[in-house]
Amino acid sequence: MKKNKVIVIYSGGMDSFTVLHKALQEGLEVFPLTFNYGQRHVKEIESARAVCETLKLDHQLVDISTIIPLLQGSSLTSDIDVPEGHYAEQSMQATVVPNRNMIMLSLAIAYAVSKGADTVYFGAHAGDHAIYPDCRPEFVEKMNEVAKIANYQAVKITTPYLNQDKSQILADGLKMGLDYSQSWTCYNGREKSCGKCGSCIERLEAFAKNSVIDPLAYEQH
Amino acid sequence: MKKNKVIVIYSGGMDSFTVLHKALQEGLEVFPLTFNYGQRHVKEIESARAVCETLKLDHQLVDISTIIPLLQGSSLTSDIDVPEGHYAEQSMQATVVPNRNMIMLSLAIAYAVSKGADTVYFGAHAGDHAIYPDCRPEFVEKMNEVAKIANYQAVKITTPYLNQDKSQILADGLKMGLDYSQSWTCYNGREKSCGKCGSCIERLEAFAKNSVIDPLAYEQH
Repeated sequence: MKKNKVIVIYSGGMDSFTVLHKALQEGLEVFPLTFNYGQRHVKEIESARAVCETLKLDHQLVDISTIIPLLQGSSLTSDIDVPEGHYAEQSMQATVVPNRNMIMLSLAIAYAVSKGADTVYFGAHAGDHAIYPDCRPEFVEKMNEVAKIANYQAVKITTPYLNQDKSQILADGLKMGLDYSQSWTCYNGREKSCGKCGSCIERLEAFAKNSVIDPLAYEQH
Repeated sequence: MKKNKVIVIYSGGMDSFTVLHKALQEGLEVFPLTFNYGQRHVKEIESARAVCETLKLDHQLVDISTIIPLLQGSSLTSDIDVPEGHYAEQSMQATVVPNRNMIMLSLAIAYAVSKGADTVYFGAHAGDHAIYPDCRPEFVEKMNEVAKIANYQAVKITTPYLNQDKSQILADGLKMGLDYSQSWTCYNGREKSCGKCGSCIERLEAFAKNSVIDPLAYEQH
């Protein structure tokens, strides 16, 4: 039987790593798509590449760092310091990249049309709803409306973890038997994870809630 | 009085050239944004640059040609021949770039958020409704829905010529006293316009309907 084709937006982080495997376990033909938009955490992209190589997936890596002049005001794409502390704090608004998910989804939808894929998998989750407007159910719903009619072929956006948080995503991944040493989360791209940035703190919380030790090495935590 | 800031998606073609001037005549502070996605008609981009220089506008040119692997199947971004003949013909579907306008609008909306602009001007028009799903009123309406909520700041998409055709856009521009020798339309980027591609034919029809001679030089028509 011919498998349905899907695009998975796959950053190399733990959420999209789980989404990727979920799509594979659903028996879909998966085309992982990774964007480099000049993030400081190139290690995340290296993880993505290594995972796709092991799984023998046709990995598409697209460098969109030329768009950075359009994305001012985020510490992830400019010289502002990456803030430390918990994600839910006000300071984390500095990590909001203008219109990030609309940009990534637009490109993923184009790729879906090119590949004859009918769906884009995307790892938006409840833990990001407070800070990121473009991770909320309302955003996904309205993007789905436009993705239906923007091309001759309708494309669906599927967000398997839209109403779950990071610890629930991890729980699902652990149930699938995933090895999270293959994912990367830290915003600072040093050899070991820093253990202090918002991203590390969230990741460590998710592992703690699942009573599991994170297999990644940390500078401190 | 402080002027409202707007982004104008400005390709260098006659439609967006008219939109640019319309926004200027409305007294807005205009930030023209031009995308290079590996089109064959680099001359269009050169026109855009020259016009912005003359008008002393802060022109943002963004090279997004690295996304071409995501956009297969269009003669504008691949090695397929540019079809000759009228735009409305079936063959012109080969000029459809997957998800083009969603991609350009997403990036323009990001730029609007960065610049503190509340509106994106975009030259979709009725002449393209038949062939391009992402030029239709329904698409613009649904993009506006998502642009309202995707960021902390709502962004509006304004399409002044959504229900007019190219000859009506030209009529408006001629009324504004615009010099259309400053715009470029031909899909083939040679010294003179080819006069045979769908784009040239549409342009020439618009001038004929306005009983005005196109100031551009043509190889034949």
